[in-house]
Amino acid sequence: MKTQVAIIGAGPAGLLLGHLLRAEGIAVVVVERQSADYVASRIRAGVLERVTTGLMERLGLDARMKAEGIPHDGFNLADGERLIRIDIAALTGKQVMVYGQTELTRDLMEAADDRGLEIVYEAADVTLHDVEGDAPFVTYTMDGSEHRIDARFIAGCDGFHGPSRMAIPASVASVFEKVYPFGWLGILADVPPCNHELIYANHDRGFALASMRSATRSRYYIQVPVDEKLEDWPDERLWDELSVRLGPEAAANITRGPAIEKSIAPLRSFVFEPMRHGSLFLAGDSAHIVPPTGAKGLNLAASDVAYLSDSLIGFFRANDNDEIATYSSKALARVWKSERFSWQLTSLMHRFPETGAFERRMQIADLDYIAASAAAQTSIAENYVGLPL
Amino acid sequence: MKTQVAIIGAGPAGLLLGHLLRAEGIAVVVVERQSADYVASRIRAGVLERVTTGLMERLGLDARMKAEGIPHDGFNLADGERLIRIDIAALTGKQVMVYGQTELTRDLMEAADDRGLEIVYEAADVTLHDVEGDAPFVTYTMDGSEHRIDARFIAGCDGFHGPSRMAIPASVASVFEKVYPFGWLGILADVPPCNHELIYANHDRGFALASMRSATRSRYYIQVPVDEKLEDWPDERLWDELSVRLGPEAAANITRGPAIEKSIAPLRSFVFEPMRHGSLFLAGDSAHIVPPTGAKGLNLAASDVAYLSDSLIGFFRANDNDEIATYSSKALARVWKSERFSWQLTSLMHRFPETGAFERRMQIADLDYIAASAAAQTSIAENYVGLPL
Repeated sequence: MKTQVAIIGAGPAGLLLGHLLRAEGIAVVVVERQSADYVASRIRAGVLERVTTGLMERLGLDARMKAEGIPHDGFNLADGERLIRIDIAALTGKQVMVYGQTELTRDLMEAADDRGLEIVYEAADVTLHDVEGDAPFVTYTMDGSEHRIDARFIAGCDGFHGPSRMAIPASVASVFEKVYPFGWLGILADVPPCNHELIYANHDRGFALASMRSATRSRYYIQVPVDEKLEDWPDERLWDELSVRLGPEAAANITRGPAIEKSIAPLRSFVFEPMRHGSLFLAGDSAHIVPPTGAKGLNLAASDVAYLSDSLIGFFRANDNDEIATYSSKALARVWKSERFSWQLTSLMHRFPETGAFERRMQIADLDYIAASAAAQTSIAENYVGLPL
Repeated sequence: MKTQVAIIGAGPAGLLLGHLLRAEGIAVVVVERQSADYVASRIRAGVLERVTTGLMERLGLDARMKAEGIPHDGFNLADGERLIRIDIAALTGKQVMVYGQTELTRDLMEAADDRGLEIVYEAADVTLHDVEGDAPFVTYTMDGSEHRIDARFIAGCDGFHGPSRMAIPASVASVFEKVYPFGWLGILADVPPCNHELIYANHDRGFALASMRSATRSRYYIQVPVDEKLEDWPDERLWDELSVRLGPEAAANITRGPAIEKSIAPLRSFVFEPMRHGSLFLAGDSAHIVPPTGAKGLNLAASDVAYLSDSLIGFFRANDNDEIATYSSKALARVWKSERFSWQLTSLMHRFPETGAFERRMQIADLDYIAASAAAQTSIAENYVGLPL
């Protein structure tokens, strides 16, 4: 098989990129290790920046998002008692959109046939070849036989564990990483949210987040030690803990219900440089991970894709090599800013077992300062809605 | 000897408090362990907030400060190459005043006789007694005999190592502390400053600060390991290091000269709660220490004194006990905010040997973000000029 861009990974990054390139008539094949059902059912992020909703608009795939998504004008920081509202609409003139990654992925998947976006699911042993030259290719096996896709470029949208990043030699790369000494225990339940906006709480007992996917589906998280066992957290214990950590005001409005999904995810900050090597580009989680505090993961993948699609369209339309040459540095400049915000909000809102009473008081002083300062609130708000591309 | 308020310590906190109380006709005795010459020659801070200059104005002791002090409209953060100017005047409508603590102390000392402020210098073995009751007293020895001052209140303005804080039992106190793994090596020299505003630099080799006391007297600092030996830093080596860390623009304007003073100071964050116990009040360094980044130490002592003088004046004028009862919580609210700012600016601008490449990149990303964000600059500026009382 021959194409112009082989995209590895059919998550939101790969699908967005595929659609953006197809819209310009560029030949694309997406290769995905998992089944379509598996991809469609992955439960992930749920808060979209303008950059992300803008790409869906540009593709004309925003109808359901506009109908079912919930625009948010603000969110709250809590300290176990008080809610500190960050009025992002008033402070920045922008909103964020609550619309599950699951829904966005479904919209992109369902439009694939219509738009001529070819997706190969259940491709095993995906391997990248000759990425340093002008004629790279991808191989995979399916039904026992090996397949090959020749392309001008490969886009690695295959997440943290995918093969794309591994195809870049360590000798040209720099890796930056911070692993946090805790994880997030999340519960998804078909109950109305306890608050119409998100609440990020820093309680003495640890972080908690009240989030949502819709008016009838809630998503809650609590900070737990990284080696915590899921079986130690029956639903009732989790609801009890959320009621304490989110503070009395939120607790009074929590509707309990059975978990549709419950899982523990580790928290990590990770950046791989560069994001381009020869004919291979990385986008999204394959190049960087943010802790979920601040909801930057999917949005950062979307901004990578915005830069990368522009670069590739420039190349195929006008034989413009400049955009391709600057992709990595452009994308990384925004990546580092989001890494900074995600790290800072994570540091502000979680209990760190290794730090002492002074550092805990610094968190409280920071929340007190934020509560009283328009400048501090504006700084948080402008990062939360997403810094300009 | 009998008085209304016995003040322990004749540094700027004790002298400011003494003058403010004397201006209202309250009887005061200041007791100081050191000689007058020693106190007058201590070299410390040099950047005054409006709260501090306001107290000197209120006392009518601001003539020399207004004539010789240098108002500053801004300062700079540097990353070894670029200067990021924080335009505090434009962002907050306020200025800071560069006027050495040595000069301010001299102004307060020289006015003491005129204003009837009694200062006992070279008082040995200063000891506090009966601080929990209504009739506390202070004893000290001088010329071989013991002296006693009976008072209604004792104000502990005797710094981190003084006896006042030690007179509060551990059972009622909370202590918060962070010791940083580095110190500041400072040099004072009679040369013109390299820049008309301060430069705080975060270089790969560590922090540096270009400061000043006047148009002809410069104060520079570099971050060094806490166990560094002064004798390993002859003047030329220090000037060389400053030229590297401050970046090429500043380096080109450095005038070298012999050190008038050169010393290494450790960095510490420290808060003692409460700041009142019975008839004893703590003010300034006796209750809290900030790392010097951001120049909050003297200014925080001044705001303590502003609150404390109001409380004591209210008590003696109107028999008002309420102000006395709330002194500690009022003062601590501002203390924690200054601790937060000093800790954050210290964390942003220094190299921490124990942290890794990711944390270093977070500093760079933070500086990049600050350089581009009016909100971030405003947040720094409003803290630098001093949050409202």
